Amino acid sequence: MGRAPSRVCLVGVGLIAGSLGLALKRLSPAPEVVGLGRHAGSLERARQLGVIDRYSLDPASAVAGADLIVLGVPLGAVRAVLTRLRPCLDADVVMTDVGSAKGCVVADVEAALGHLPAGFVPGHPIAGTEHSGVEAAFATLFEGRRVILTPDTGTRAEATAMVRGVWERVGAEVVTMSVGHHDRMLAATSHLPHLLAFGLVDMLARAPDHDETLRYAAGGFRDFTRIASSDPVMWRDICLGNRDAVLQALGDYQNDLAALADCVARSDAEGLERVFSSAKRTRDAHLHWFER
Amino acid sequence: MGRAPSRVCLVGVGLIAGSLGLALKRLSPAPEVVGLGRHAGSLERARQLGVIDRYSLDPASAVAGADLIVLGVPLGAVRAVLTRLRPCLDADVVMTDVGSAKGCVVADVEAALGHLPAGFVPGHPIAGTEHSGVEAAFATLFEGRRVILTPDTGTRAEATAMVRGVWERVGAEVVTMSVGHHDRMLAATSHLPHLLAFGLVDMLARAPDHDETLRYAAGGFRDFTRIASSDPVMWRDICLGNRDAVLQALGDYQNDLAALADCVARSDAEGLERVFSSAKRTRDAHLHWFER
Repeated sequence: MGRAPSRVCLVGVGLIAGSLGLALKRLSPAPEVVGLGRHAGSLERARQLGVIDRYSLDPASAVAGADLIVLGVPLGAVRAVLTRLRPCLDADVVMTDVGSAKGCVVADVEAALGHLPAGFVPGHPIAGTEHSGVEAAFATLFEGRRVILTPDTGTRAEATAMVRGVWERVGAEVVTMSVGHHDRMLAATSHLPHLLAFGLVDMLARAPDHDETLRYAAGGFRDFTRIASSDPVMWRDICLGNRDAVLQALGDYQNDLAALADCVARSDAEGLERVFSSAKRTRDAHLHWFER
Repeated sequence: MGRAPSRVCLVGVGLIAGSLGLALKRLSPAPEVVGLGRHAGSLERARQLGVIDRYSLDPASAVAGADLIVLGVPLGAVRAVLTRLRPCLDADVVMTDVGSAKGCVVADVEAALGHLPAGFVPGHPIAGTEHSGVEAAFATLFEGRRVILTPDTGTRAEATAMVRGVWERVGAEVVTMSVGHHDRMLAATSHLPHLLAFGLVDMLARAPDHDETLRYAAGGFRDFTRIASSDPVMWRDICLGNRDAVLQALGDYQNDLAALADCVARSDAEGLERVFSSAKRTRDAHLHWFER
């Protein structure tokens, strides 16, 4: 396991970085955890909740002496935040992020810092809830979950080892893969479903009688649309950040829906049953893999 | 509350009719519950589970003396089952069904019996799980759930009152509405989501690397696709039974997806955020209404 950091700076302390802070503070020995953010109010709340030991609104003092910096800001803020951090960054510091798309993070790091530093290890903990903010953070969020790291060929092995070690110490299983592979897989299993759920609830919301209609929605609807209660700005950024892969997955899905509509229109019972049975068989066979 | 039936015949004893049988047997006084089906094995199992008091494979002996007949068969079987029952039906018997679409049930009743009897009260308990069969039945399935009845202008008021009373006694809240209104509402909140979830899992299932892809699916995917583990034949029948309303809802949704794809392609952050925010606001505001 890689060298454990003795001081971690969380840049943006929401659900994910906040939960990491809580989990890190349970370790023995626990690193010092420093918060950097824009609002003293929420950072003070994070300190009260035991997520961070101290905080600062000033980048230089927050990252000073940190041997690991974790970017916990939304995808849309990565570039601006790194531009502000740039003058304070030690050349050797290990950095990672928690964004749901990785190609756009790499592009934003390169745009903000001029290159992808050898200490930057793009990361994506596959964990979360439809809630957001530090109040929703909990220490066990990563236990048994998978974390995907997408180091570059130029990434320092010790940097990847340190980031891997941090996630493993808080209970996650870590795998590495390429940026493109990550972005295509997550477009299909996460980004597209969010788009579909948001789209369905918005469609109902625009119907004049939606108040009554939703009164008769059942448990299936509640679960199908749970992810439509997620943070709109965060998911806007993810869909745009992973635009090409999301468009590809959405286009494939639109083609499949057209074929399904055709089955229904032609009363093609066999065709519908084939699709529904394949789906049930596949889901039932893989259910044990889905993260909680 | 309507007159309570003293003998109820369940035609087809799966999750829904089976749960009704269990709930009825908990009442005091409890009606006699008789099962009618095609397979002695599953009817004997239903008897062992306490769902029914006795059973028969013969329609005439099963419905003899019943003052309420509940059709618990899949939508696709309603017409054939009623054709078999026709010679044994008392002119005054009260009948109801539990199908998820109502227009096709009324059409099948008319086709099988020559008319919609004044004792037939089409019904839809908005309850269920992704599991099916009598083994999945449980007595509290209807507690706090809504049951929609769609009586015709010619339906006897005492028939509607008896069916309403049965559902209310097992803990459900009963509302009445027109067949068309029911079918349009449920197409949007239930039938379309099932089609979308089946479609998404089938799309992933057809990808050569779906084994790996599903390994990184998270809780959002698990919940979004829970209904894709539902019974394929039952949902094939529902989508075809409620074809016009399902096609209308699906067509509206396809238009909305095209607009969303356009937003992503044009990087229209404002447009995406508007849709996502409307969805979150509406879902969060109505969450307390969704049935469990």
